[in-house]
Amino acid sequence: MATATPEERFHLITRRLQEVLGGESIKAILEQGKTPKCYWGTAPTGRPHVGYFPPLAKIADFLRAGVEVKILLADVHAFLDNLKAPFELVAHRTKYYKFILLAVFHSLGIPTSKLIFVEGSSYQLTSEYNMDNYKLCATVTEHDAKKAGAEVVKQVESPLISGLLYPGLQALDEQYLGVDFQFGGVDQRKIFTFAEQYLPKLGYAKRAHLMNAMVPGLAGGKMSSSDPDSKIDFLDAPDAVRRKIKKAFCEEGNIAENGVLAFVKAVIIPISELRIERAQGATGADPAEGEDAVGPQTPFVGAGAPPGTVFSVYRDEKFGGSSHYASFEEMEGAFERRELHPKDLKAAVADALVSLLAPIRAAFEASAEWQEVEKLAYPDPNADKKKKKKEKVYHPPPPGKGRNAQPTAAAADSAPASGADAVEADTVSKADEAAA
Amino acid sequence: MATATPEERFHLITRRLQEVLGGESIKAILEQGKTPKCYWGTAPTGRPHVGYFPPLAKIADFLRAGVEVKILLADVHAFLDNLKAPFELVAHRTKYYKFILLAVFHSLGIPTSKLIFVEGSSYQLTSEYNMDNYKLCATVTEHDAKKAGAEVVKQVESPLISGLLYPGLQALDEQYLGVDFQFGGVDQRKIFTFAEQYLPKLGYAKRAHLMNAMVPGLAGGKMSSSDPDSKIDFLDAPDAVRRKIKKAFCEEGNIAENGVLAFVKAVIIPISELRIERAQGATGADPAEGEDAVGPQTPFVGAGAPPGTVFSVYRDEKFGGSSHYASFEEMEGAFERRELHPKDLKAAVADALVSLLAPIRAAFEASAEWQEVEKLAYPDPNADKKKKKKEKVYHPPPPGKGRNAQPTAAAADSAPASGADAVEADTVSKADEAAA
Repeated sequence: MATATPEERFHLITRRLQEVLGGESIKAILEQGKTPKCYWGTAPTGRPHVGYFPPLAKIADFLRAGVEVKILLADVHAFLDNLKAPFELVAHRTKYYKFILLAVFHSLGIPTSKLIFVEGSSYQLTSEYNMDNYKLCATVTEHDAKKAGAEVVKQVESPLISGLLYPGLQALDEQYLGVDFQFGGVDQRKIFTFAEQYLPKLGYAKRAHLMNAMVPGLAGGKMSSSDPDSKIDFLDAPDAVRRKIKKAFCEEGNIAENGVLAFVKAVIIPISELRIERAQGATGADPAEGEDAVGPQTPFVGAGAPPGTVFSVYRDEKFGGSSHYASFEEMEGAFERRELHPKDLKAAVADALVSLLAPIRAAFEASAEWQEVEKLAYPDPNADKKKKKKEKVYHPPPPGKGRNAQPTAAAADSAPASGADAVEADTVSKADEAAA
Repeated sequence: MATATPEERFHLITRRLQEVLGGESIKAILEQGKTPKCYWGTAPTGRPHVGYFPPLAKIADFLRAGVEVKILLADVHAFLDNLKAPFELVAHRTKYYKFILLAVFHSLGIPTSKLIFVEGSSYQLTSEYNMDNYKLCATVTEHDAKKAGAEVVKQVESPLISGLLYPGLQALDEQYLGVDFQFGGVDQRKIFTFAEQYLPKLGYAKRAHLMNAMVPGLAGGKMSSSDPDSKIDFLDAPDAVRRKIKKAFCEEGNIAENGVLAFVKAVIIPISELRIERAQGATGADPAEGEDAVGPQTPFVGAGAPPGTVFSVYRDEKFGGSSHYASFEEMEGAFERRELHPKDLKAAVADALVSLLAPIRAAFEASAEWQEVEKLAYPDPNADKKKKKKEKVYHPPPPGKGRNAQPTAAAADSAPASGADAVEADTVSKADEAAA
């Protein structure tokens, strides 16, 4: 593939996407033998979880096709998303994100020579960028900005001004990062078409937009920061991964709402196919692909599988033996017809995920620097609480407020507020389709 | 007054204002023997006219009281107000504003050693300022920003995002200009209380706010850029001034809607009183006051006026002789009782204004640099038109579109659009109470 045709590269760049806007411009770049440049943005607000695998699996395709990929770590956005936390904390999280994302690509053997991390603060506060922001604000109506952000900006009763700025800032990022296309979830569609409409009004080129389908959370219907089992962390130990997947909603025969099936489609089968392709010598545009891969790079295919299999589900011989699937659709059909039981599917997915996470955990455990960053980025929320408990002094309740008093609204209000979520926020507008 | 007490200085700073918010903080600065600092902002969008006299007459009080006055020439705002005009044009206008404002102060003998011109672009595009702008946008709701700007931001059906940013930017100006109070028209009241509410949320001090009453246009009910006679330019020749004042709406006995009376109150009597004070040795905190004054610095008081007169209206002896007034209220009462005729009032105001403008015109005529700036800042709007007319080529009308054809909507649309107003706009949100 080092000598891949423009057509082959274009196929690799656009396969499995839900939608491509402006693909012709990418084709033109490839036909000139040039390197297309793209960006994907993420705001380092919370802690990245395995819901980040779908965009990263697609970015792996870009890198294999020889695309220059800029990952925008939108630190300014993350800071604005929760002004209570100091910018220093955001800086630690930005570092943690870099460690995780690099470890994911290394674990998959994806070459990262064309991967560039850019912090938003490195250019989003310059006078040129801000003048352009002001120009956009003097061009775009509140109505159009609100429409553009409708799917990604949290819709609240009293919206903040910042929600109106995000579409414009994200458009400017394309110009200031100097890219040919932006990649994101299909929830970004209105933001993307906004950029296509407004960048030319500032005299800048209209960019192409590539969109992944939305992927529901693997471990639960809705990922919720209050339920610790609803997200699987990249550094979770095998038993935690298995426990969380066991608890995941995955109803027999129901293919409509099924995070486990969706994860197989968006992550496990693509990675399995990547490994099959590599085993067949299709190593992408970069001949170094696979050289740095960590651990066994075997596809998720069981022993005795027929050629063409991309995913196998192990089952004991006495229950009918393993199943082998040549495509996601084949597996999905079997699940719908109840030929594939949720328990067997979950076990296969847990095995695959545990093997995907093992080299990432190993990289973390081998890096004192990363471990240090992790402590600073995600300080123990209970550390303060424990201290406070120690210092707790008994105050007798005022009359009518003691344990045996009638509950009133005021008494309910006086319950101690948990400070644990003070630095947890996940409402940012940047491309974060993984969390949907 | 070089040894004026804090009380005397505070009186000079706050006299004739409609409203003062936070005056105690200014008193405290004066009691410590320190120099209060203030700012007044204006966006160099159009061409300053004599409607700028009311704020300048008040700023004269600040300077005489030893206040450091920063005049913010909001060039970024002016540029955003009309993106069609190049920034270069705004830069020329900024220079023109400086020439005019300095000439006004010099003509009145007001010391300008504590007067500082600041261009908005010198700090409004820095990373610190913009980070603060983003922080405000992530703190302020659309609703609160809209409410704050309700009186100064043009209310249109499809409002632009920029209208929501202006209140926050104007609040930040107080911090970045390092002032103790902001001065403006009372139409800025909501913007000012917004600043008082939100600056402390960024950890910045709450500033005081001093407000002038609103002054209607001198030459017409509403100043309109389409009627050239509705504004009196600082450089208008005496005959133009007299013609425009003659046309002004000034109904006998009507004191409610009367731009001529309002101008006497806000400009002519204050300047007359300033000259009387100076003749009495009250030269303000700066001993240099009056040294550079241009032309006769006599108050607008006629021959034979009794002591205490601040304004006289000349009338021939055969019509009852001149009237002399010791205060605006006295004159206003006479006008309401129809003892003072509009024609006589207009003649007196025209005389006063012509004498006020004479030294400003003289300064313009003596400065080749200023004349050059004037040409660049306000290029002849007809220059292009004349050229176009010359180049005009006759195209026969298409069938049904000629002179004798029935008028249709399409035909009406094809009327040539005038390009004359392309660089004319006066909708900016900065303190511009003079134009109201």
